Amino acid sequence: MLRTANDGELRAADASKKVVLTGWAAKIRNLGAIVFLDLRDRYGLTQIRIDPELFKKQEIRNEYCLQVEGTVQIREEKNPSLATGEIEVVAEKIHVFAPAQNTPFIIADKTDALEDTRLKTRYLDLRRPCLQKNLMIRHLALKAARDYLESKGFLEVETPTLVRSTPEGARDYLVPSRTFPGEFYALPQSPQLFKQLLMIAGMDRYYQVARCYRDEDLRADRQPEFTQIDCEMSFIEREDVLSVIEGMLDKVFKDVLNVNLEKFTRISYMDAINIYGSDKPDLRFEMKLSNVTSILQKGTFEAYQGKTIKALVVPSYATKASRKKMDEDNNLAKKFRVHGVSFFKVENGALEGSLAKYFTPEILNELAVFLKAKEGDLIIVGADEEEGKISVALGALRSAYGKELGLTDPNVYKPLFVLDWPLFEREDDGHYESLSNPFTRPRDEDLPLLKTDPTKVLSYAYDTVINGLELSSGSLRIYDGNLQKEVFELLGLSKDDIKNRFGFFVDAFNYGTPPHGGFAIGVERLSMVLCQTDNVRDVVAFPKNLQAADMMCQAPSSVPEENLKILGIQVAEKKD
Amino acid sequence: MLRTANDGELRAADASKKVVLTGWAAKIRNLGAIVFLDLRDRYGLTQIRIDPELFKKQEIRNEYCLQVEGTVQIREEKNPSLATGEIEVVAEKIHVFAPAQNTPFIIADKTDALEDTRLKTRYLDLRRPCLQKNLMIRHLALKAARDYLESKGFLEVETPTLVRSTPEGARDYLVPSRTFPGEFYALPQSPQLFKQLLMIAGMDRYYQVARCYRDEDLRADRQPEFTQIDCEMSFIEREDVLSVIEGMLDKVFKDVLNVNLEKFTRISYMDAINIYGSDKPDLRFEMKLSNVTSILQKGTFEAYQGKTIKALVVPSYATKASRKKMDEDNNLAKKFRVHGVSFFKVENGALEGSLAKYFTPEILNELAVFLKAKEGDLIIVGADEEEGKISVALGALRSAYGKELGLTDPNVYKPLFVLDWPLFEREDDGHYESLSNPFTRPRDEDLPLLKTDPTKVLSYAYDTVINGLELSSGSLRIYDGNLQKEVFELLGLSKDDIKNRFGFFVDAFNYGTPPHGGFAIGVERLSMVLCQTDNVRDVVAFPKNLQAADMMCQAPSSVPEENLKILGIQVAEKKD
Repeated sequence: MLRTANDGELRAADASKKVVLTGWAAKIRNLGAIVFLDLRDRYGLTQIRIDPELFKKQEIRNEYCLQVEGTVQIREEKNPSLATGEIEVVAEKIHVFAPAQNTPFIIADKTDALEDTRLKTRYLDLRRPCLQKNLMIRHLALKAARDYLESKGFLEVETPTLVRSTPEGARDYLVPSRTFPGEFYALPQSPQLFKQLLMIAGMDRYYQVARCYRDEDLRADRQPEFTQIDCEMSFIEREDVLSVIEGMLDKVFKDVLNVNLEKFTRISYMDAINIYGSDKPDLRFEMKLSNVTSILQKGTFEAYQGKTIKALVVPSYATKASRKKMDEDNNLAKKFRVHGVSFFKVENGALEGSLAKYFTPEILNELAVFLKAKEGDLIIVGADEEEGKISVALGALRSAYGKELGLTDPNVYKPLFVLDWPLFEREDDGHYESLSNPFTRPRDEDLPLLKTDPTKVLSYAYDTVINGLELSSGSLRIYDGNLQKEVFELLGLSKDDIKNRFGFFVDAFNYGTPPHGGFAIGVERLSMVLCQTDNVRDVVAFPKNLQAADMMCQAPSSVPEENLKILGIQVAEKKD
Repeated sequence: MLRTANDGELRAADASKKVVLTGWAAKIRNLGAIVFLDLRDRYGLTQIRIDPELFKKQEIRNEYCLQVEGTVQIREEKNPSLATGEIEVVAEKIHVFAPAQNTPFIIADKTDALEDTRLKTRYLDLRRPCLQKNLMIRHLALKAARDYLESKGFLEVETPTLVRSTPEGARDYLVPSRTFPGEFYALPQSPQLFKQLLMIAGMDRYYQVARCYRDEDLRADRQPEFTQIDCEMSFIEREDVLSVIEGMLDKVFKDVLNVNLEKFTRISYMDAINIYGSDKPDLRFEMKLSNVTSILQKGTFEAYQGKTIKALVVPSYATKASRKKMDEDNNLAKKFRVHGVSFFKVENGALEGSLAKYFTPEILNELAVFLKAKEGDLIIVGADEEEGKISVALGALRSAYGKELGLTDPNVYKPLFVLDWPLFEREDDGHYESLSNPFTRPRDEDLPLLKTDPTKVLSYAYDTVINGLELSSGSLRIYDGNLQKEVFELLGLSKDDIKNRFGFFVDAFNYGTPPHGGFAIGVERLSMVLCQTDNVRDVVAFPKNLQAADMMCQAPSSVPEENLKILGIQVAEKKD
């Protein structure tokens, strides 16, 4: 080793020790009679005290990579904000491993450099302690999850990433085959089929930290390649899977943040929608939605007749609710395809608002009492034929107000299981879509409804939510080949579709499939919660930008035509 | 849970317990008055004793997936070869989770099914206990490696798999970009550049269990996608890296096989070639090559003049060496571009052979004494202008004879570091190629030779070999930007080449690069050694065949033209 200690470990007890440190010159203060240099590595900072004569012997500037030999001494002025703040190292010899040009931005947590600039020289960006800390948190989270799963008998099995493309896989990244020209592999969106096949193979408990790929237009919190902690178990019921998820996340939060997660709340999907207007409600604050249909239908407001009317109380917001703000809220609600929302303010003991004239004082009073609205509160009301639709619109407002009112303390964690998801949702054109995936098992008691009213069928699907973020989703799977075919058919797949897309998978059901189920946790999402960032690129070492480009390596790029020829493909003619 | 115990854990102490077991019907013996059924899961086999009346209630055949409720009782006839062989479970209730068709081959370790048949229904193949054991060994090896690296302060960092293609990357798998039509990502052959950039970024110690890709014609021991334990460290010397490799493999062999590896032997690359005729010698047996130039050049055999003459003694093989066998040996040697080899047999105290006439009895006697050849030994001799070439040819024979003579005990492990690799090798057309990779650091003392005789420059590259298999390779890396450029230039790269292929990487060297180095261990290769198999597909859950096809999923496959259109590519016209 070229060092005897790292830059984060020396303490007062080390005084008078001879040491060799290595790292980067993070800050140089030349006071004339003495030079101070902060030496930085992954482990911390140590102050180096350098005699001006020694300092002059060679050029040393910021970000030079150095080796310093010297003696530890107690500092005169201690720095309590630094782990090594009690000591400094008096340099006796300094060796420059490698010099450095001026960096395009300062290597410090606070930076005003544009993200594009930082991504172009990501190796410098990653020298910033905040990003190093994020990668360490991600590392610790994965380690905690793995330790937990190993302790529960899960086997890590690697599944292929050069897989079969599904015909409708417009979201697939494709890989041309050289050995079969004109044919393609796909990169997997998840290891779903393989992990179910591992259960059929009798592997009993599987996990994998799996790289997955999705070629879609990128939102701020997505990357074209991402990682999930992927699990599957055999001979289990829903409770067995939930206890693994809960146990794993308990350990992750304890090991990484020293936080003891509280017992996971449970809510059905329908309740989550109706009470919080979201399938991933943030439970750090209340602000539940109320069904006020029976009260407000007593008024004369025509547009409310025959609809479900729901209300959200925003505490102490009446005086802050400007015209402009209410217009913004209305526009936000309309994005969820409802007609908009209306506002009442509790002022001088009464409800004021543009709709107040449609309701008697008694009705308005009943509303205020029912909602437990207090002087100065704002009440937001909306209606729709479908309770779900107006709930989701108000749910978006609930989230926004929760943040605005400072009710989303980042140091409070509220874990939640959302259970009993509907198996299907019906699209506007009448066809059914899986709410989770086509392998999700319907609840036993709902099986008869498959034939009569499929949208009423609830499933053994479950999501894990913390603070309004979906961390994992999963389900028990169908293990009866005939039931699987019935579900495929309800999804509108023809016999040929089934054969072409899932043929080998359906075949596998002919050989004794065990009851099984599992889940996948998004590693980036989990890391974002643990690192308290809402930028996915803060928890990825070398991220792509929103155009799916690697700014540092300049990927993607054009490739020589002869390399394409080997693969039997060519770039399509451009027509504009 | 749908079970109270697994099929491998019940013992005599559990007698009279009520249990619920789950698993697959592995064997059914209907004796008329009683039915025995072996229930199998990942953990083992348990014998179920079933009353014929209960057995008749439903159809139960091989590979049915079952749940059995019953009571543990001590067996009358114990089966000492089975962990649960002291007990059986008297069935009270049997539930069929899922029936099974006849499987295309018997689910047992011994099978005569063709590999293609097994790969088509890999989920059944994986039910065979031997393959389950292999996957468990692979799992344990990865766990041991991770535990070791974690304990040494290595951070797991995930690097991208959609990367930049290098212009000469004919071995790259390509991925068309949708957002930049006509451009491509490549799947990485290794995370080499990224791990070095992580060192420049100050991550200090990195590891990753990394998926890598190489599109080459497949040999039996290669897969198009494979996994390596990839490591890199900063502020280290060669000894630091070797001690991590040694420590990690010690732990892997101890944790997985309960084997205490002996201290790693060390040998220079040149010695490995000259003494064993291989850069990855199998040290389980001796049979060293000897340089007999000075002895045999005293004879009159024209073809030996001016060449290096080397000899291999095969003990007690003289009588077994048929004409045919010697012809085969000669042909094997010729594959290494030497003129062939000759044979002497030690018979009746003298050396016999077609070349004997060219040498006096004194010379032949000197040869036998020098080689310590004994009565009945076979001596194989060859010569070439280059000592390396004839050594490698004889090395191939040494390997073959080691196996044939049963000197390669699979339960003996001989770990070895091969050090001091030449930096370059000179190709026939005179240009230089890196022997490991272009980032390998030349030895400090050899730097002057870069300008005068580059082929003489030795490097800080090191391979780890166990029993003749290369498990890992690695090196200290160049950390001086100018030296890196000099090496690129010696490799024949123009300024434009360097900029186009490694521009961003060379730029990174401008900002204080630490001394660093690392290694990568092939996970499949390691697992093959631990599982004692020479078929890579035995240690991969869902392998590709030699045409890089997934026989089960039928990948690669054709994809709809509209999906290609989105990516801006088309299948090339076929011309024949």
